[in-house]
Amino acid sequence: MTSIGIYGSLGRMGQAIAAAAPGMSARVAGGADVKDDPLAIAAAADVLIDFSAPQALEAHLAAARAARKPIVIGTTGLLPQHHALIDAAAREIAVLQTGNTSLGIGLLQRLVREAAARLGPDWDIEIVEMHHRNKADAPSGTALMLGNAAAAGMGTTLAEAEVTDRAGTIGPRSSGTIGLASLRGGSVVGDHSVVFATNGERIELIHRADDRAIFARGAVKAALWLAGKPAGRYTMDQVLGE
Amino acid sequence: MTSIGIYGSLGRMGQAIAAAAPGMSARVAGGADVKDDPLAIAAAADVLIDFSAPQALEAHLAAARAARKPIVIGTTGLLPQHHALIDAAAREIAVLQTGNTSLGIGLLQRLVREAAARLGPDWDIEIVEMHHRNKADAPSGTALMLGNAAAAGMGTTLAEAEVTDRAGTIGPRSSGTIGLASLRGGSVVGDHSVVFATNGERIELIHRADDRAIFARGAVKAALWLAGKPAGRYTMDQVLGE
Amino acid sequence: MTSIGIYGSLGRMGQAIAAAAPGMSARVAGGADVKDDPLAIAAAADVLIDFSAPQALEAHLAAARAARKPIVIGTTGLLPQHHALIDAAAREIAVLQTGNTSLGIGLLQRLVREAAARLGPDWDIEIVEMHHRNKADAPSGTALMLGNAAAAGMGTTLAEAEVTDRAGTIGPRSSGTIGLASLRGGSVVGDHSVVFATNGERIELIHRADDRAIFARGAVKAALWLAGKPAGRYTMDQVLGE
Amino acid sequence: MTSIGIYGSLGRMGQAIAAAAPGMSARVAGGADVKDDPLAIAAAADVLIDFSAPQALEAHLAAARAARKPIVIGTTGLLPQHHALIDAAAREIAVLQTGNTSLGIGLLQRLVREAAARLGPDWDIEIVEMHHRNKADAPSGTALMLGNAAAAGMGTTLAEAEVTDRAGTIGPRSSGTIGLASLRGGSVVGDHSVVFATNGERIELIHRADDRAIFARGAVKAALWLAGKPAGRYTMDQVLGE
Repeated sequence: MTSIGIYGSLGRMGQAIAAAAPGMSARVAGGADVKDDPLAIAAAADVLIDFSAPQALEAHLAAARAARKPIVIGTTGLLPQHHALIDAAAREIAVLQTGNTSLGIGLLQRLVREAAARLGPDWDIEIVEMHHRNKADAPSGTALMLGNAAAAGMGTTLAEAEVTDRAGTIGPRSSGTIGLASLRGGSVVGDHSVVFATNGERIELIHRADDRAIFARGAVKAALWLAGKPAGRYTMDQVLGE
Repeated sequence: MTSIGIYGSLGRMGQAIAAAAPGMSARVAGGADVKDDPLAIAAAADVLIDFSAPQALEAHLAAARAARKPIVIGTTGLLPQHHALIDAAAREIAVLQTGNTSLGIGLLQRLVREAAARLGPDWDIEIVEMHHRNKADAPSGTALMLGNAAAAGMGTTLAEAEVTDRAGTIGPRSSGTIGLASLRGGSVVGDHSVVFATNGERIELIHRADDRAIFARGAVKAALWLAGKPAGRYTMDQVLGE
Repeated sequence: MTSIGIYGSLGRMGQAIAAAAPGMSARVAGGADVKDDPLAIAAAADVLIDFSAPQALEAHLAAARAARKPIVIGTTGLLPQHHALIDAAAREIAVLQTGNTSLGIGLLQRLVREAAARLGPDWDIEIVEMHHRNKADAPSGTALMLGNAAAAGMGTTLAEAEVTDRAGTIGPRSSGTIGLASLRGGSVVGDHSVVFATNGERIELIHRADDRAIFARGAVKAALWLAGKPAGRYTMDQVLGE
Repeated sequence: MTSIGIYGSLGRMGQAIAAAAPGMSARVAGGADVKDDPLAIAAAADVLIDFSAPQALEAHLAAARAARKPIVIGTTGLLPQHHALIDAAAREIAVLQTGNTSLGIGLLQRLVREAAARLGPDWDIEIVEMHHRNKADAPSGTALMLGNAAAAGMGTTLAEAEVTDRAGTIGPRSSGTIGLASLRGGSVVGDHSVVFATNGERIELIHRADDRAIFARGAVKAALWLAGKPAGRYTMDQVLGE
């Protein structure tokens, strides 16, 4: 049975991961004595999951490297400096970083990139997401991930392509752009749609999350998959069968 | 057979109306000789349809009043002064003004107002529309109509309630607001969705226009319904059976 | 504070109602001593909710009549004989019977009936529902409720209009029919779509349930609304504000 | 400029292809003199498109082989014996056979197969299509194509997996099945949705055709792509960029 060490074990996601693990042939490493010691957690586990805070990432990566343990990073709000730390760690250990640990989103990301690459510039791409009324940022981090996947498929970057303000006299749509729109309301866990539209036809690739437990289950599944992998930086969509 | 006089007969909608009329037990009034004379057109018709330009509205209303003929107004871009002219004319003749002559949109407008009124403030309202890549304004006039219907149902105005810019750190959604988002792409004739979301459930009221001919057919149907009605200002949703 | 007596208090819905009541300014009537006695429950409560079994309905209605207490009936699987019992009881007490206690479905039912009545025979009506993989009956009871609402709006009955088998050489669609289709998969709580389609345009009226708690909250809201109402048979959509 | 020979040039699709070709840097081969002679058409063209009838396929393939010209086959209603003829021809010339010449459907087919393969048996697959009220067969040929793609991804066949009758007491969904449902109404050109559902999340892959012209344009694009290819049997999704 694989033993998982959790950084951020007292947070909402950390607790959900601890609850999900036993039903997935995994157990949570360490007891009360190691809770506050990144090195002790890393030593006791086969693989690590970090859902804590960006400022704790450096210490967690250092512990993972010292113990030579793979690590799944689901912490959000990472800056370029954190990605540099991750890249450095990935030269020594297996690291999987993602903004969304749902397996469905991992697949959607892959399908979006592929569709954008194959359909080409005659197809306009628009992304719309809906989340609960209390979500404070827009577009969602997952919508940005999907936008990056679409931009990569188009051979550009989201920073180049994105359009988030459409109100008033906007004029014709510029070719090669990606529109992003955000809806907020009720208790929606998270819906994401990527629309590809050309003359006379449309493709819509949609993900609907109905239950937050999918994020914990996806994190555990990612950790089980990552355990034993060689050094390198991995992505969520690799967790799904080849 | 009802005879319809068309103002704006050379425009895209005017021509579509002339094409649709014969299949709907209607005929187009007047020949080449009356094409440029509002009074001659009004005299020759049982009912009028105006799809021209706001600046021509005053002359067309004057002709309709002089001939005592009902008039359907589908011209867009009307300003408050044009609505004042319409209200004045409606004291003498039947006038139906609408921003969208589709019968489906007429019904949707009614359903949205009713849903907003009955569901109450625990349900958040969001509107999203998609149109072809060349549409130059956002949100669409029809989305604004639907937003007005929702606002009326909530006992407020769209000007008070609308939110069109959601990007960055937006904070929790304010109660009583109506979000509007616009997607652009391909050749989409016009899709409109009104979403009502509360804890644990959602209602979506959607209209999809696949063919521009519906706007011409709806205008003819409105004209046939309006013919013979007493003075007053009418709306598209009244055209549907009570 | 209104006191609610629950028949079927040990069932999944009964427990969910007991959990929801305190947060909605209601309390559950009776203690362990009355749990098995319908008359004692009715005597102790201001209003009753029944989520038990069809064969227990007669005793529960008798108790409600004896105590002159309104009753919300959410028990499913009712036969014509049960509806006859309900009609008889409704001559003495207020009774609200529904196959779905979600407020959103109550509204949707009303909108579907209205749309079917106004749009008329040129619009074809199709209903599609999706539920979790373990739901054993199809179409869902709620889809049948919505089908009945559509049929009532069309001036017919669902028994006359419904088409549930579309496979093979089916030929052109018969006017005046209502198609019903059922999808099953995953853990979907319940999605229902009613589609109205005519030449060139479509209206879709959709309800998505994301959380089973809405049914308990809706039942409590219905009970609070029903308390104090005169004898008669009421429906869920009346619970929403007029 | 590539010259396209059309078999079935007087049919609705044949005429649409002839209309679409000039705008896509292609021209239609042959004049009135060759219209009835498959060999003359094949001799005059760079590539062939067949939208005729199954019983004419043998002669058209023979002509294509004799002239050594690639051929796109969009004729529907093919039986196993026709596919055997196609396989035989593909040993000598390039043949692309498809039940749907829309580029979007070609891509969707690929995405569906990939999603089914990667998501694995915990995800249930359901397909729902909507077409206009006069479509006489159900499910649509395109829904069956998508079902085949899903079945291939699952490592099974649609014949093994498909479920088209869900009414009455159906019991829990069997793992490894693919549900197909058909809606009919209005003038819908063709909507197809493939739903993948597991605990707590769903993916929906949707194609909406708004205009029949896409099928003609897709056929011409396929022909332009196929011209010059070596012998072999090709599929529509290969036409999109690799």
